[in-house]
Amino acid sequence: MRSRVFSVLAIAALATACARIAAAGGVSGGHADAVAPALLGLAVLLLAAKVGGDLCDRIGQPAVLGELLVGVVLGNLDSLGVHQLAYLKHDPAIALLAELGVILLLFEVGLESSVGEMLSVGPSALVVAILGVVAPMALGFGVSEWFHPGSVYLHLFVGATLCATSVGITARVLQDLGRSQTPEARVILGAAVIDDVLGLIVLATVTGLIAAAGGGSGVSATMVGGIVGKAVAFVVGAVAIGYFLSPSVLRMAARLRARGMLLTTGLFICFLLAYLAQQVGLAPIVGAFAAGLVIEDGHAEPFYARGSDKLHELLHPLLTFLVPIFFVRMGLLVDVRQFFDPAVIGFAVALTAAALIGKQVCGLGVLSPGLNRVAVGLGMIPRGEVGLIFANIGAAMGLNGQPIVGPQEFSAVVFVVMATTLMTPPLLRWSLAK
Amino acid sequence: MRSRVFSVLAIAALATACARIAAAGGVSGGHADAVAPALLGLAVLLLAAKVGGDLCDRIGQPAVLGELLVGVVLGNLDSLGVHQLAYLKHDPAIALLAELGVILLLFEVGLESSVGEMLSVGPSALVVAILGVVAPMALGFGVSEWFHPGSVYLHLFVGATLCATSVGITARVLQDLGRSQTPEARVILGAAVIDDVLGLIVLATVTGLIAAAGGGSGVSATMVGGIVGKAVAFVVGAVAIGYFLSPSVLRMAARLRARGMLLTTGLFICFLLAYLAQQVGLAPIVGAFAAGLVIEDGHAEPFYARGSDKLHELLHPLLTFLVPIFFVRMGLLVDVRQFFDPAVIGFAVALTAAALIGKQVCGLGVLSPGLNRVAVGLGMIPRGEVGLIFANIGAAMGLNGQPIVGPQEFSAVVFVVMATTLMTPPLLRWSLAK
Repeated sequence: MRSRVFSVLAIAALATACARIAAAGGVSGGHADAVAPALLGLAVLLLAAKVGGDLCDRIGQPAVLGELLVGVVLGNLDSLGVHQLAYLKHDPAIALLAELGVILLLFEVGLESSVGEMLSVGPSALVVAILGVVAPMALGFGVSEWFHPGSVYLHLFVGATLCATSVGITARVLQDLGRSQTPEARVILGAAVIDDVLGLIVLATVTGLIAAAGGGSGVSATMVGGIVGKAVAFVVGAVAIGYFLSPSVLRMAARLRARGMLLTTGLFICFLLAYLAQQVGLAPIVGAFAAGLVIEDGHAEPFYARGSDKLHELLHPLLTFLVPIFFVRMGLLVDVRQFFDPAVIGFAVALTAAALIGKQVCGLGVLSPGLNRVAVGLGMIPRGEVGLIFANIGAAMGLNGQPIVGPQEFSAVVFVVMATTLMTPPLLRWSLAK
Repeated sequence: MRSRVFSVLAIAALATACARIAAAGGVSGGHADAVAPALLGLAVLLLAAKVGGDLCDRIGQPAVLGELLVGVVLGNLDSLGVHQLAYLKHDPAIALLAELGVILLLFEVGLESSVGEMLSVGPSALVVAILGVVAPMALGFGVSEWFHPGSVYLHLFVGATLCATSVGITARVLQDLGRSQTPEARVILGAAVIDDVLGLIVLATVTGLIAAAGGGSGVSATMVGGIVGKAVAFVVGAVAIGYFLSPSVLRMAARLRARGMLLTTGLFICFLLAYLAQQVGLAPIVGAFAAGLVIEDGHAEPFYARGSDKLHELLHPLLTFLVPIFFVRMGLLVDVRQFFDPAVIGFAVALTAAALIGKQVCGLGVLSPGLNRVAVGLGMIPRGEVGLIFANIGAAMGLNGQPIVGPQEFSAVVFVVMATTLMTPPLLRWSLAK
């Protein structure tokens, strides 16, 4: 125990030293180079992410929560008079690497599920997933309209951020409880995967509507139908074409006499589909997810036969480097002072309630008798990376010179993610122990 | 054979399709997002790098040459009326990732050699290395002064680019010939490692002098001494302090309950030292190399005991992704039309001769009798990544509004790298076969 306290103190001392070095760098400021602050920022972010992850793990919480929290701490140091790390929020290099990180994260999530699995999760998972998207979307829209009457695009975005269940957090809790092979777990995980796809289609539709509104055209039912159709067509089309093409692409790549071909080919497919998604007006993460979905382990046999590591193992170091940058950066963008405003904290709490209640409706969708419906509903509560990604896209999109998701709403969404992440492990443990 | 031809054709067709898509993206241009062109650029660069590497491997040349050559082809398409890929040369995201790639490459080169090895390579390697830095530096300075009289900083930079032997290419050729355990190989590889350090000190000195000149102060012998002293002090100091601190940092990191701690800690040390190097006026790669040098495999025992992969294995996917971006980008920046100018091609050929003759002087430094001195001299010929990195830094540095290394000189340095890389394998094979 003493050695642990020592190690935490030592790391805190190291972090302080880094912050001082950062401060010194910020003060001298002689080097106008773009790389120098990014290098220091990267070192600070990577260390901070791991310290946060460690502390959360010690109190039984998922590491992603720790990464968000250290981000919040680092991002609000300037309220305490420490301004030297404030540049991290807007550093273009950090922003680019964070975005690459989230693209690769969605690629990895896609790799973990296969088209076959998606088709075979069964009617329960599908009904649970649809209810779990519709109910929180409607409740989120309602809460947003109550607190900020009028701005329909904001309501759509806020609703969308409440749709997608965070597969990672649920899976981790079920695994920790030794319950990942139960029927409830299969329904939850299957529904969470369908959730992701539905959530991405919702996002594509909302962003498409906003882009059309920015272009001056009004919103009509035909247009909504057209955008939903385009989103569904891209996802289904990319998956269908990719599913038949990717084996041949990988087989051809295996013939090239160059090292690292499996990872390079995977990244090539991921970046190409992410780019194409963006070209048709969708978020790049939709394409990255589709790319992961169409590459199946069986297609890479020629590489594995020669002793190559699996593709997801090769991706792992890239995720280790880039994904924490995304989550710490999300925390950095939260302005804690906004929670002193009763309206903001009220909005955040009401949204959290909407997120919670919305997913309990899911339990009603379980068709097989004898399953623990409460546990299924509770297992769908956590919102994580996808909600944050949506909020981030909303903050970056603008209409009439105003961001769709303003700093206050952004902070409220981060609050929802943190609150749902915090409450799921104890609730699920309680429900499954009954 | 037919299947190979087919695969090359199919890949060429795929590359053409990508270029078309890129062209379409360039024409529509509606999306002002910074990520979209970078995503497509990344996909194109990664594919192009591997196709180039494959073609070079088939004709017995190292992959790095292929990456440079495809870069030259892609970068000069606009002379043929294809302008859609021209943005790749100046895309900030590609530039940032290329720079990260070269920082991680030097970190990896540092990891491959240890402080103990550096101290034990013996007097032959040290004398060979010093001769191999002084002679090409002097010859390069002379050639540059002959072709471009007056600009002393350019001469210093040109001389510096001829200093460092490319360890990778030599090691690969020796390995391919089954000669990597001979005494000649040990002298060559030992000298190449010392070369790297000496080259970095030369670079630090030259950039320091230019920074001082930009600040308005004249160049004096005291100042040169001061800058050389600072460079040596940083390298020796960082290595000495890091060598004693890094085991404790790694031991503390091993106590954190977070995944990916070994890679994260390695990257943390790398980025921190790269940043510190830049803060004292050196290139970030000097710090990255020092970081690699101070981390020894033995220090990471607590991680390996738990079944972690080795640090250099974890780094591998990052290098697979980022390093080709650096080399293809170097090729992109070469303007082939400049070689139609007799002065430029004359300069390039004269520099190549200086690079060749300069390293033959090394053979004289072999103290042990009975060794093949010609083979040692020939093994030191290839200039690769380090020469390009220096040229790149020179192109980015300016004095009185002019870059130190102009586009013509940059192209000439890339010519030297390509020519020396092309000639080494056959010459070394011939000399060792005698």
